[in-house]
This record gives sequence, structure tokens and C-alpha cells, in this order.
Amino acid sequence: MSSTFDLLAFDADDTLWHNESRYQAAKSEFVHLMSSFQPPERASALLDEIELRNLSLYGYGMKSFTLSMIETALALSDGKISGAEINAILGIARRVLTAPVELFPKVAETIAQLAKQYELMLITKGDASEQEQKINRSGIGHYFRSIEIVHDKTVTTYRNILAKYHLSPDRFVMIGNSLRSDILPVVQLGAMAIYIPHENTWAHELEHDGKLAADSYYQLDCFEQLPDFLNRLQDSFSLTQPPTTLLAE
Amino acid sequence: MSSTFDLLAFDADDTLWHNESRYQAAKSEFVHLMSSFQPPERASALLDEIELRNLSLYGYGMKSFTLSMIETALALSDGKISGAEINAILGIARRVLTAPVELFPKVAETIAQLAKQYELMLITKGDASEQEQKINRSGIGHYFRSIEIVHDKTVTTYRNILAKYHLSPDRFVMIGNSLRSDILPVVQLGAMAIYIPHENTWAHELEHDGKLAADSYYQLDCFEQLPDFLNRLQDSFSLTQPPTTLLAE
Repeated sequence: MSSTFDLLAFDADDTLWHNESRYQAAKSEFVHLMSSFQPPERASALLDEIELRNLSLYGYGMKSFTLSMIETALALSDGKISGAEINAILGIARRVLTAPVELFPKVAETIAQLAKQYELMLITKGDASEQEQKINRSGIGHYFRSIEIVHDKTVTTYRNILAKYHLSPDRFVMIGNSLRSDILPVVQLGAMAIYIPHENTWAHELEHDGKLAADSYYQLDCFEQLPDFLNRLQDSFSLTQPPTTLLAE
Repeated sequence: MSSTFDLLAFDADDTLWHNESRYQAAKSEFVHLMSSFQPPERASALLDEIELRNLSLYGYGMKSFTLSMIETALALSDGKISGAEINAILGIARRVLTAPVELFPKVAETIAQLAKQYELMLITKGDASEQEQKINRSGIGHYFRSIEIVHDKTVTTYRNILAKYHLSPDRFVMIGNSLRSDILPVVQLGAMAIYIPHENTWAHELEHDGKLAADSYYQLDCFEQLPDFLNRLQDSFSLTQPPTTLLAE
């Protein structure tokens, strides 16, 4: 039986490997460092605020986060921050950027298995050099036939990718942990989306303005359920059942 | 007559628009800011050194440069840098990142003209969010059928792009201002490269280890010579003359 999909596309951060937990750890270190100036709640809230405000200027990634930490430190200390503390913030960034990539359980085996049956693509958002370094260090980069590192994940982003690779939306599946970036825009394009939530998903990625009916995408508890789920999905399509029957299970 | 090339690929920074001059301006501001701690030559040399050392960690772009300016300021001041000075460095970054994109003379007209005759691609190195913002603000982004923002420009990078778009090296032309990034790897792949030098090219981009014979690529003085040159190149190919005859002119 030929495949129902031409391509499986995966998000990377917090879908294949830990990412948000690193930012949380960096933030904890930062808040601790600022404790002589301001209480933790204040430092944490201001960092969140400045980080979001800087997104359109700096984009995503650890370098942007570091510049936001420095800006926050200046504000929290009323400009009295010391060189040693600025240096400590640069040290936080350096540790995160050089840390090994930690895959989620069973991701390596599952991706290897899926690569035998499907063509795989990686669609990841963020800083290109940081993402490329993570992909290289992940040990699973070679399973992906193509890699797209994008500035943001909107309907237009996905439409452009489909056009570039001559893919039809009804034969494209996106898998990720972010309703905002991996699920909603893909559903809006008429393609399939599989949501695998992760407890550490950045709050920003859970927010979305669009209407997202619970039966417009699939949801799995963990990554290793993917191969069986995709097989069942293919069977259901080959019987021309509507995909919603699967959700009722 | 059908085209000899399937695609013209362009570098962006310092090929289509000013980039290095912005970094030079930022660096001048920084060196001036540091003048109470160290003489300009010392500040300038240390910033260059730290920037190059951080390339593999941070990648290219203004955010990386800013983190290197901050690290340099800590070193130059022996950790005595003030909050106000750190804030001034963040201000330099903000000004560069929000500055309008300045195209080189005749670039807008020439690209518009070439787009009628050829399929155009942009292959640019650096920070994805910064590059996307520059492309959007350049006013010429829509002429490029595809845009590749890459971490680095090596033979492998170009080989992957050719494979992705099903392009043959002997029908691919790359145009850019960097011997290291735009010319040498392309020539090594057996594709055509057109070098348009720019006085403000970052020294790092002029260095290369490879052997690059002067007759292995073409060189033009300015961007607006491109359409005529490409027409002549096509004619020479259609007469099956070797391309070197063109260089002798």
C-alpha cells in the first residue's frame, strides 16, 4: 500500500528534545543572581515582559534571551549592576549554548523507525546557528531529508514550505508540541497536525487567537505512540473513513 | 533561445545592500564609548579578536556582535564597566537592528530587470530573524523565488541547496562579494561564480585557504553590469566558446 502522506514534518524544540527546561534553568540562575536587587517574582516577571517585548526586534533563541537578561538586569538594579554580574549572565548563555542536546525518551528509536517508512522533514523556529548546532549534536539530524529553520511559524510559512517542496496540504503531516506554531497554522491550511503536548512548553506557545476545534487535530501522549498511530491513520484513510473516527477511540 | 542557467543566486549583505559599514559604524561608537578605559586601537583589536573567537558559539549577526561588544567592554574595563555603558551598547544594537536597509546603487532596477529573464534566489548567511527583517524591509524581496538563510556557506551548503532544488552545478550562477563564502565553494562545486568586490567587505570574508585561480570565476566592478554580462555569457555559451574567452576582454 502506498503511503497516505508524502512527508512527516517535525518540530524540534520540546518535541524531539528538551529546550524550554534549559531556558527555565537559565532563568532560575538569573533570578538568583538578581536577588540582591529585587525579589524573585519581580525579576522573573520583568524578564518575561522584556523578552516578549524584544521578540520582534531580536527574534527567538538564547542570544536574544541573553540580551533580554542584560536589559532586565539593568532595569532591576537601576543601572547599578556590576561587571561581575554581567559576566555571570554571559556565563549562563555560554553554558546553555554548549550543553549537550537531550532527546526525549524513545525519540531516537522512533525517528529511526519512521525514517524507514516515510520521508521526514524538520521545521524549526529560531536562531539558525543555534538550531543547526542542536541538530548536529542531536545525533538524529541525518534522518531528516530536509531541514527548514524559520523565523516564525505562520500559515504563510507553511504555505511557502509546501510550495517549495511541491507538497499538497492533504498529504502533509506536522507533529509538534505548540498549538500556536505547529498545530493551528497547519490545520488552517487544511493539512494534518499531531499535537504531542509537553509539560514544559513555553506559555507563549500555548496561546493562540484562532479557533481550534478539538476534532481538527490529533493528540498523542508521547512520541513513541507515533508509528502505531500513523499506521492506524493510514488504514483509516485507505478505508475512506473520515479521520474523526480515530479520535473517538 | 533558452537560458544557459536555470537560476541566478545572490548573496545579500554587501552584495545587494550595505552591511559591513553598519558594523563599522557600530564599532566606532563602541570604541568611542570605551575611550575612558583603553585607547581606540586596543578596543578595536580586542573586539575583533573576541568576535572571531565567539563565531562558532554565537554565529553571525548583530546580536552575536552585541554580546561580543559586552564581553569586550568587561575585559577592557577590567570589570569596571557601568550600567550606563552597558545600556549604551544595547542602544547601538537597537539602532543597527531597526535602521532602514540601504540598497547599493542600481540594485533595485537591476534585480527587477533580471527577474524578468531569470529565476532568482537569495542565499544569505547569518541570523535568520535579522536577515528576514532586512529582506522584508529591502523592498526587493518579492523578486526572489526562493530564499535560503544558512549558518555558513561551505561546499556542503551549496551542494545541499542544489540537491534540494534539483539544480545542476553547470546551470547555477552565484553572485556575491565574498571570495570565501560566495565564490570559492561555488567554484569548487563546478558551478559559475561572479565576484563583485565591495570596498567594505569584512576582512574575514576575503580570507580563504583554497586555491582560487583568477580564471575560475568572473569579476565585475559594479552591480549594474550584470544584465549585459549575463547576456554576453549566454551568447558565448551558445557559440560553445569556453567561458575564459570572456575574461580576456
